[in-house]
Amino acid sequence: MSETTATHKVPVSVLGLGNLGRALAETFLREGHPTTVWNRSAGRADGLVARGASLAATPADAVAAGELVVVAVLDYDTVRELLLPAAGELKGRTVVNLTTGTPSAARALGAWVADQRASYLDGAVYAVPQTIGTSAAFVLYSGDEAAFGTYRTVLDAIGEGSLVGPAAELSSVYDTALLSGMYGMFAGFFQAVALAGTAGIGAAELTGPLVRWLTAAADALPAFAREIDDREYGTTTSNLEINAVGLRNILAATEAQGLPTDLLAPLLRLFDDQVRAGHAASSLSRAVESLRADTGRL
Amino acid sequence: MSETTATHKVPVSVLGLGNLGRALAETFLREGHPTTVWNRSAGRADGLVARGASLAATPADAVAAGELVVVAVLDYDTVRELLLPAAGELKGRTVVNLTTGTPSAARALGAWVADQRASYLDGAVYAVPQTIGTSAAFVLYSGDEAAFGTYRTVLDAIGEGSLVGPAAELSSVYDTALLSGMYGMFAGFFQAVALAGTAGIGAAELTGPLVRWLTAAADALPAFAREIDDREYGTTTSNLEINAVGLRNILAATEAQGLPTDLLAPLLRLFDDQVRAGHAASSLSRAVESLRADTGRL
Ligand SMILES: NC(=O)c1ccc[n+]([C@@H]2O[C@H](COP(=O)([O-])OP(=O)(O)OC[C@H]3O[C@@H](n4cnc5c(N)ncnc54)[C@H](OP(=O)(O)O)[C@@H]3O)[C@@H](O)[C@H]2O)c1
Ligand SMILES: NC(=O)c1ccc[n+]([C@@H]2O[C@H](COP(=O)([O-])OP(=O)(O)OC[C@H]3O[C@@H](n4cnc5c(N)ncnc54)[C@H](OP(=O)(O)O)[C@@H]3O)[C@@H](O)[C@H]2O)c1
Repeated sequence: MSETTATHKVPVSVLGLGNLGRALAETFLREGHPTTVWNRSAGRADGLVARGASLAATPADAVAAGELVVVAVLDYDTVRELLLPAAGELKGRTVVNLTTGTPSAARALGAWVADQRASYLDGAVYAVPQTIGTSAAFVLYSGDEAAFGTYRTVLDAIGEGSLVGPAAELSSVYDTALLSGMYGMFAGFFQAVALAGTAGIGAAELTGPLVRWLTAAADALPAFAREIDDREYGTTTSNLEINAVGLRNILAATEAQGLPTDLLAPLLRLFDDQVRAGHAASSLSRAVESLRADTGRL
Repeated sequence: MSETTATHKVPVSVLGLGNLGRALAETFLREGHPTTVWNRSAGRADGLVARGASLAATPADAVAAGELVVVAVLDYDTVRELLLPAAGELKGRTVVNLTTGTPSAARALGAWVADQRASYLDGAVYAVPQTIGTSAAFVLYSGDEAAFGTYRTVLDAIGEGSLVGPAAELSSVYDTALLSGMYGMFAGFFQAVALAGTAGIGAAELTGPLVRWLTAAADALPAFAREIDDREYGTTTSNLEINAVGLRNILAATEAQGLPTDLLAPLLRLFDDQVRAGHAASSLSRAVESLRADTGRL
């Protein structure tokens, strides 16, 4: 079942040959795996077939040819549609679904695959097609631990994989959180570019030092995370009051340039709520308690 | 005037021995510069004097002792208060002001220093006191180009320096923009932690992959910046429509967990504005045009 000898290479099937699926199939071919592919529009397989892939006529044929069945299509409805007629072929195989979706869809699909006596891994790929198979790519999986152990080496060719937990939906939860973080960073980028632009500073000029600073500031996040997990917000450096003053000044400067402030103003409200509650000298990271307050069950 | 021989070391004075000033003075001492220090509360100089610094009795005495005069105090009002009685000593020296302030305060101070026939550099330090003098620190200066050329090597001991332009206020403008970017990233971090927390995922567990993903996503920013400068938003990868759908799903998942969405909802409005204006297939970076629209002069 695993790559214990140099001569045995796990047969892999890839369902879905969009931008992601083609990059995946190319990676498996490059690693020497017997690779079977299927796509709704069969023409997209041409390049892969030229490089040695087998083209399956149906999703069920593709499933039957692979020990590891990797799926990357539009959405979970499509995944279900493709796997349903292949149900009889699934037993004993491992399905790795890299399609983006919601936690509840992942949970339902994982349960259905298990009902077919197959193993299920749900995965979220952190890469663009051009970085698949490079050290810049990584993948967060959740689901069957034994299957992850068996196929980890095969899957690492896509990008370094980690198993975040056994519940199928966890990878989706992580994905939603990681994308929230990314969108926050993008919002800050747009605000920074617009503000610098009012002084005639070009976006490219700004972005060199900005990326350097964001990278340095990201190094502060693990310390924030420890404070949040321990709910211990003592600090000797950057406290909530200093940051509230600083952010208020930034918003005033933004407004003075005629730019909207609503991308960052909600963060100031989190700071202010904590300062008002008597936590002026606490770490900046306590701002998360203002969000937590609304659910009471973070 | 410069470090052309191993035996001549530029005499440096440091005014203000708070967290930043003390780290600066330690760095100059370590580099072997004759270092004079002054602080309102003289006791803060004790450790530095023990390591070889000279303690000046007044700001004017400190200025008179230094070829390079570095200032790091609470705010620009304080800088002015300290330098005013030292006006007669400034001629021919270079003032490097690392105090945080507004563009207009930097412009006014730069003009006043020039009136004293001295050179002025305004700087923003990207570091915490613990990283001063390490490769993690960097400093953006604006102001007198000749002075920057002369003292660049001396200043690089603090952290790698760059001159962003000759107008004294530019370093403040960059600073406001870089901090806007940082606060956006922090907002995304808090949102991500709160969301993952509703599924029982700890902040530290999340932060490992999150930092990795933010670092990877930051690599996309230079390409966004080029698109913004060229106002050419053609794309083959991540377009506005895909991102609007993705972000809308994230906000729905956030709301479903009982969490507020206002940290990221304003970004969706930027995306939606552009999609409505017919730019669904344009790059995500076009979102900045929604901000620009409000000023008309980015
Ligand atoms: N691109 C990336 O780097 C990347 C990274 C992380 C996650 N993802 C996720 O991976 C998934 C695929 O992304 P992608 O970039 O490869 O998308 P894509 O280029 O748009 O490809 C979509 C794929 O889905 C297939 N498909 C759509 N509707 C179908 C249907 N009704 N029946 C059968 N097949 C259908 C398409 O087949 P046709 O060729 O016949 O249209 C195509 O193979 C998405 O969930 C995406 O979020 C992608
Ligand atoms: N800490 C950093 O890593 C860092 C990084 C980037 C930028 N900065 C900027 O650098 C500046 C100083 O920061 P810091 O962290 O060193 O602050 P700090 O530790 O609070 O020190 C403030 C300094 O200002 C002096 N001061 C305050 N009011 C004064 C007055 N009326 N007259 C004379 N001196 C006065 C204080 O003197 P006393 O000791 O007598 O109170 C002290 O030396 C700030 O503008 C900050 O934004 C700091």
